Amino acid sequence: MSQAVSSPLYAAIDLGSNSFHMLIVRHVDGSIQTMAKIKRKVRLAAGLDEENSLSQEAMQRGWDCLSLFAERLQDIPQENIRVVGTATLRTATNVGTFLHKANQILGHKIETISGDEEAATIYKGVAHTSGGSGRRFVVDIGGASTELIIGEGFEAKALTSLKMGCVTWLEKHFRDRQLTKANFEHAIEDAKNTLTPILQQYRSLGWDVCVGASGTVQALQEIMLAQGMDEVITLTKLKRLQNQAMLADHLEELEIEGLTLERALVFPSGLSILIAIFEELQIEAMTLAGGALREGLVYEMVDGLRQDDIRERTIHSIQSRYQIDTVYAEQVAELASKLFHQCGGVGWVAEPQAEMLLRTAAQLHEIGLAIDYKKGGEHSAYLIQNSDLPGFTRAQRYCLGELIRRYRDNIATMPEQHALSGNSGKRLLRLLRLAVLLSHRRNSALEPRFTLKSSDDTLQLFLNAQWLESNPLTKAELEIEANRQTDMGWPLEVVAQE
Amino acid sequence: MSQAVSSPLYAAIDLGSNSFHMLIVRHVDGSIQTMAKIKRKVRLAAGLDEENSLSQEAMQRGWDCLSLFAERLQDIPQENIRVVGTATLRTATNVGTFLHKANQILGHKIETISGDEEAATIYKGVAHTSGGSGRRFVVDIGGASTELIIGEGFEAKALTSLKMGCVTWLEKHFRDRQLTKANFEHAIEDAKNTLTPILQQYRSLGWDVCVGASGTVQALQEIMLAQGMDEVITLTKLKRLQNQAMLADHLEELEIEGLTLERALVFPSGLSILIAIFEELQIEAMTLAGGALREGLVYEMVDGLRQDDIRERTIHSIQSRYQIDTVYAEQVAELASKLFHQCGGVGWVAEPQAEMLLRTAAQLHEIGLAIDYKKGGEHSAYLIQNSDLPGFTRAQRYCLGELIRRYRDNIATMPEQHALSGNSGKRLLRLLRLAVLLSHRRNSALEPRFTLKSSDDTLQLFLNAQWLESNPLTKAELEIEANRQTDMGWPLEVVAQE
Repeated sequence: MSQAVSSPLYAAIDLGSNSFHMLIVRHVDGSIQTMAKIKRKVRLAAGLDEENSLSQEAMQRGWDCLSLFAERLQDIPQENIRVVGTATLRTATNVGTFLHKANQILGHKIETISGDEEAATIYKGVAHTSGGSGRRFVVDIGGASTELIIGEGFEAKALTSLKMGCVTWLEKHFRDRQLTKANFEHAIEDAKNTLTPILQQYRSLGWDVCVGASGTVQALQEIMLAQGMDEVITLTKLKRLQNQAMLADHLEELEIEGLTLERALVFPSGLSILIAIFEELQIEAMTLAGGALREGLVYEMVDGLRQDDIRERTIHSIQSRYQIDTVYAEQVAELASKLFHQCGGVGWVAEPQAEMLLRTAAQLHEIGLAIDYKKGGEHSAYLIQNSDLPGFTRAQRYCLGELIRRYRDNIATMPEQHALSGNSGKRLLRLLRLAVLLSHRRNSALEPRFTLKSSDDTLQLFLNAQWLESNPLTKAELEIEANRQTDMGWPLEVVAQE
Repeated sequence: MSQAVSSPLYAAIDLGSNSFHMLIVRHVDGSIQTMAKIKRKVRLAAGLDEENSLSQEAMQRGWDCLSLFAERLQDIPQENIRVVGTATLRTATNVGTFLHKANQILGHKIETISGDEEAATIYKGVAHTSGGSGRRFVVDIGGASTELIIGEGFEAKALTSLKMGCVTWLEKHFRDRQLTKANFEHAIEDAKNTLTPILQQYRSLGWDVCVGASGTVQALQEIMLAQGMDEVITLTKLKRLQNQAMLADHLEELEIEGLTLERALVFPSGLSILIAIFEELQIEAMTLAGGALREGLVYEMVDGLRQDDIRERTIHSIQSRYQIDTVYAEQVAELASKLFHQCGGVGWVAEPQAEMLLRTAAQLHEIGLAIDYKKGGEHSAYLIQNSDLPGFTRAQRYCLGELIRRYRDNIATMPEQHALSGNSGKRLLRLLRLAVLLSHRRNSALEPRFTLKSSDDTLQLFLNAQWLESNPLTKAELEIEANRQTDMGWPLEVVAQE
């Protein structure tokens, strides 16, 4: 029987230049569960005058917001709370006035962190929520600053915080609210100049993958999905969006499919900065990070979550949450790997991440059984596609879900997905289904010896004849599976060998 | 971090007169999780000749099926397996021949259980999977026997196994495969005669609720859902289905929306028996049991699952599976109960099960957060509506899901559901939302004192003015909620009191 559980809550508050955000989480069984997210568009940066002094109105908007946040903070242990102010509070000359009252309202001290600290925390937030190995370049465009970090694993190697952001660039380059070519060009040019001092260091450090955090990148992701594109951000796509934006004369008339009203105002300025970064640093592709500043604050408070392989941590956490038989899950993953290599490995499925996806699908395919046996695959897919899976991109989550949805019973064609080519998706599905079938005794000692041979799309599975005779259920199921795959136009033959 | 977990498997096999079934489950954290279900239509009863001897063909069908089952059994500890034979094996004169070979194939001894044992085990399966209190009447129509049990809690008070079943009645009364009035009348009449010896005892024991197990009742449930009816089986509906069936001349032409081909053959005979039982025992309403013989076998093997309140066991198990904050869940349930009684209790929401449903919704509303915070209510609804929840009927699960889907954010009208009247559903939803709002500090010591007054659909929530001032977030949220409910045509006023 379960016992009463009341896990500790943690809160991270970020007084940004555009919005104030509060994130409340619980730490449960090796993973972080979001309990509440509250956001208020305070637009603090817009309240700075020529002398960098915050207007009374802007401060009042900030205080009003904090008095709402304060109510929630009362129930959280002081040591589980972090509240940080960023660029605008670093800049404001009358920050003391603002903070004095703000601290009182909040009942908790606000730390104004430096640009480097901000960059370091963002990097932690990204490192704890993004997968993949190798050197990573992180870009976070805030309201009044942009952080650029290069790191590996949990270690940042270069940290920069630049004084440009989507709110300040809006006021500087789109003050007339016109979406003209000239405005865009000035905004991009200015951003390029701002980048100049760091170019050489960053180019020579180099990186393997590039991820973007913050609202601008999030908005791009939403637009691309709404317009049916894949999730990878490229310069070509950014330029196309700039052209789409210039079709509107005025910012208020901006209409881009997938762009929400809330994000529209600072979208052109954020886009200009991102284009400058892509061009100056010759970025080929960027994906969205799973977390940034607030997540970094949380992970700094919660001990024991540092694990080198974020994906492995995620898989273990999900397996444990849905109480699946992890010994069996490992057995299926091993079997799937074996089938994959027998077929020719990356010679047969070209994408480098293919084996990782196949193994992950094998490790998670039974999670839906926690809901119900009937439609187990459907349920697994629902859980995977709707959960936050640190270390996996949205396209990978979707692809995993679609593979797992089809792990047993009738086969259906894989839908379009962007993590793998259509052909690779199909091939992984075939291997996953075979791995599940061959391991249904749920005991690796009872697995048959097998050889899988591939010739393009034709598969031949060789098994010992005697083993097949003494395992009539597996034999019957393999025969059905051979028919199913063959009927789909994916020839599969089961061959009994003496 | 999670550890390798490999929970023990259990298998229950039931060699029934119509089908052989194998059920494989795991016992995880206080609940039973189905891992596999295999069914083969062996139609053993149809292989009995005039002298009650099993034909060679029928025996061979049985042996073939058992050799498939045998493969799976090898990996399960002997003490976790039970294999039972029922009516046809009790009757067959050459049962020894069948069992000798069957035991060899299976590698496990088959027990032929008596009718009373069968009835007792069915009762256990029902008691462990059905909610509600009071005296319970259980009806299970098998292929060659029908079990009738009256019990309370886990205790059976009367057990009967009658020699009539949907396969034997098919061969006896629908041998010509004609769906004539005369055939139905003979089948019903014969069933009534078979019931005569027990009528007096059962009528005088009486019962509060009636549940049906087995394929016939399952098929009825599917038909009623497919035809848009609620889930409660009544004599009127049975008669209507008999009329629908008689529209077809011949069994092969039988077409009833929601009736699967697989069940069609024995549907008219099963229906006749059920009509006889409804008429002779004057049953008003019957719902589908969550389990029967195989579940009874499993629960007999798995220790420590006996808990008097099945619903409570289910709620605890679900809470623990989705790792929700149980202290908070209890707080919301208490608050919801308080609101319910302040409004007038069953004077305001008439159905006797209303408070139980409201409390359950409060206890489970956060389970979806295990998936993701965004759309948490959607996810909770998905989990509840797709999980097997022993103790809750299908209509109750659906209603719970729809309440919980709407526990926060915008309100939407409740869809049609059959657990409560439309008006009651709406009222419970209003209370649930208020309970969640009033407890958002997640600490019962910090709850406000409140009084909720109802006058038909108009609600007034009285709160201390000072408390409201010092809790501006709750105040703002209550104001939004008052507008939302009022905009739906459900007037709600928040009144600050000195």
